[in-house]
Amino acid sequence: MIPPMRAGILAVGSELLGADRLDTNSLKLTEVLLRYGVPVCLKSVVGDCETDIAAQLRHLLSVADLVLVTGGLGPTADDVSREATAVALGRNLVFRDDILAAIASRFERMGRTMPEVNRRQAFVLEGATILANPKGTAPGLRLEEDGKTVFLFPGVPHELLGMIGRNLEPWLREHAGAEALETVTLRVAMVPESEVEEAIAPAYLEFGRDRITILATAGDIRLRLTAAGQAVERSQLLAQMSERLACLVGQAVYSRREEDDLETVVGQLLRAAGATVATAESCTGGLVAERLTRVAGSSDYFVGGAVAYANRVKHELLGVVPEVLKEHGAVSEAVARALAEGACRLLHADWGIGLTGIAGPGGATPGKPVGTVHVAVAGLGQTTHRVACLPGDRERVRQLASQMALEMLRRRLLSSAVAAA
Amino acid sequence: MIPPMRAGILAVGSELLGADRLDTNSLKLTEVLLRYGVPVCLKSVVGDCETDIAAQLRHLLSVADLVLVTGGLGPTADDVSREATAVALGRNLVFRDDILAAIASRFERMGRTMPEVNRRQAFVLEGATILANPKGTAPGLRLEEDGKTVFLFPGVPHELLGMIGRNLEPWLREHAGAEALETVTLRVAMVPESEVEEAIAPAYLEFGRDRITILATAGDIRLRLTAAGQAVERSQLLAQMSERLACLVGQAVYSRREEDDLETVVGQLLRAAGATVATAESCTGGLVAERLTRVAGSSDYFVGGAVAYANRVKHELLGVVPEVLKEHGAVSEAVARALAEGACRLLHADWGIGLTGIAGPGGATPGKPVGTVHVAVAGLGQTTHRVACLPGDRERVRQLASQMALEMLRRRLLSSAVAAA
Repeated sequence: MIPPMRAGILAVGSELLGADRLDTNSLKLTEVLLRYGVPVCLKSVVGDCETDIAAQLRHLLSVADLVLVTGGLGPTADDVSREATAVALGRNLVFRDDILAAIASRFERMGRTMPEVNRRQAFVLEGATILANPKGTAPGLRLEEDGKTVFLFPGVPHELLGMIGRNLEPWLREHAGAEALETVTLRVAMVPESEVEEAIAPAYLEFGRDRITILATAGDIRLRLTAAGQAVERSQLLAQMSERLACLVGQAVYSRREEDDLETVVGQLLRAAGATVATAESCTGGLVAERLTRVAGSSDYFVGGAVAYANRVKHELLGVVPEVLKEHGAVSEAVARALAEGACRLLHADWGIGLTGIAGPGGATPGKPVGTVHVAVAGLGQTTHRVACLPGDRERVRQLASQMALEMLRRRLLSSAVAAA
Repeated sequence: MIPPMRAGILAVGSELLGADRLDTNSLKLTEVLLRYGVPVCLKSVVGDCETDIAAQLRHLLSVADLVLVTGGLGPTADDVSREATAVALGRNLVFRDDILAAIASRFERMGRTMPEVNRRQAFVLEGATILANPKGTAPGLRLEEDGKTVFLFPGVPHELLGMIGRNLEPWLREHAGAEALETVTLRVAMVPESEVEEAIAPAYLEFGRDRITILATAGDIRLRLTAAGQAVERSQLLAQMSERLACLVGQAVYSRREEDDLETVVGQLLRAAGATVATAESCTGGLVAERLTRVAGSSDYFVGGAVAYANRVKHELLGVVPEVLKEHGAVSEAVARALAEGACRLLHADWGIGLTGIAGPGGATPGKPVGTVHVAVAGLGQTTHRVACLPGDRERVRQLASQMALEMLRRRLLSSAVAAA
């Protein structure tokens, strides 16, 4: 059996060696490599220094079969990836008139004259395959060396992204050899990681532990399922795994698409129901409304919202009766319900979300610690309520509270859709 | 002159080679290294594989004088940084009873028995200096090899952080040799990077181009000034540079502290003035309110806000007259002014922000392209207005619009403070 191909990544750029920035291009490259069954054995970052780039490139070629270099193909004097590769592999740089012409015509199309510095980008390594870059001036390069392969890509993220699809994927499809991998993501809201882990334990036994990965962020879990093999087998296995996991985790699975956030799914349900929503928030300060309106086209179902920090605003804008505020306190079930119903009534929406809580660090009172959050959802003549004590700092409490509110609305929308059917 | 010391970083952990996670420990290490004038020449990540770790470590020692390794010191079988270092440097691993005793007593203090696996953490490299780790079981190690130095640190961020202060900083203070560096950050709102660059050009000549770095995000620029030398010289030079740059950039400098966001500074000004603010937003969907309330204690000056997506809400909640909406359209100066004044009046605040625009991708009309944003600020009996066509996608337009609104309020607060003085 041929040992599987291993990849190494080299990001070039002095700005990536400071205390502020990380090389994120490697994540995009890794995603594609893993999809074709090629693991990454070494990632590295060097500055715009010819000697350092050449040394690291030689080292990468000693440990990996496929080396992907990003950055250092620009027009300025500190872009030296081409020169460093020439040194590392002992090859010449050749000037190509056709590439210069392509670069010059790109500038012309934008109504500009090509600056003299861009001439440098028309140099290519002897024996290299030139990879067109429709989104920028620097072409990419592919070289073979002792049975190993080196790609040079531009470092500008959207240029790189285009070239991954155009150049890297077709090459991997042909050469990766290993079985291609395919993934499906189930997204799960407001269930602790340990509970998800426990719920899906049977699936670990049935499908193998390495086929299922859990990625957790605040109140949001991605269950990533992976399958190898031929296209048909893969998609059959993924369908089977998705079904099984959705069954084990239950209603908390809000989407089977990696890219669908909870606010997107809630929007889809509202749109499908032809319904509208309004919000009345206190401690989240507008985060629920802000999340709902991140989705393009949300004006179709989002009517508006109120951020009611001061009690007077809760009363005057949302009709929360002063006696209720006085008797129960601003952070209470009664006020959450009044906010949700006030949002419905005063903003003329079918559904209303009411949210009040203590995000911290200050504001705790006896019996109401930091993280206490009351959420109510009003709609179809019924208001439901939940209370939780959410963990974490101010930012995390606010994030979790908004997630809790959106998830409650999603469940209500699901039930009402079932009831209507 | 001795060539300056260069550092290399190696993060160990297979989880850092996937498509989801980046090694962020290197940023903390880099920050400290740069403070002591030690540049990083190579950063790298390898998986939990003895051969790969050893190969990369040898390579790092060939290009750097100081090598910092994080991760792979844990108790489980896949933690092999100690073994890999032994291989790379040709040294023995020695079992240390005193370290085992320290680990066991740590477990005892937590009321637990030490698992057998933790015995592995009592092995140290021959000739290594042992670095106590008060926050975890794995001690760190420091080794000298051919005039070069290797540190092995745990990868758990809070354990590492403690050891940076306890072990790395004192070592750097003694050995870095180069002059220590100190930085000051000026933060600048809503000025394009190219304009800032042009404005500060004289300072490049006066202080040297490599002393000033520009870092730009949406509507927010950090000007980072760096000075070397003795403590007194450094702070004098930084004070001088800050003054000069603040003078060149002008009022757009909103803070001289790295950690102060625009919403924090606006909050400080409101608090100082004993004034309150309310918001009335359309296309930002609550983002301005959400940003203002990210700041702990913002309930002292933030009264509340309205997110008025539907025209009916603009009218009923904020008193925008239907005729104005009809005549000028929802995205207009007149509506922005009415929103700002409505927020002031109806939410009983001293200041009101009104914001309306087209975040896209849909919603453009002839003469009102995507990105058109009107912002008005009402207060002290006067309403000011600005319009802009902001570039970028939905997320960027919303971010820039919220920045524009907060910056307008900041300028108004500054003028009113001057007028009051």
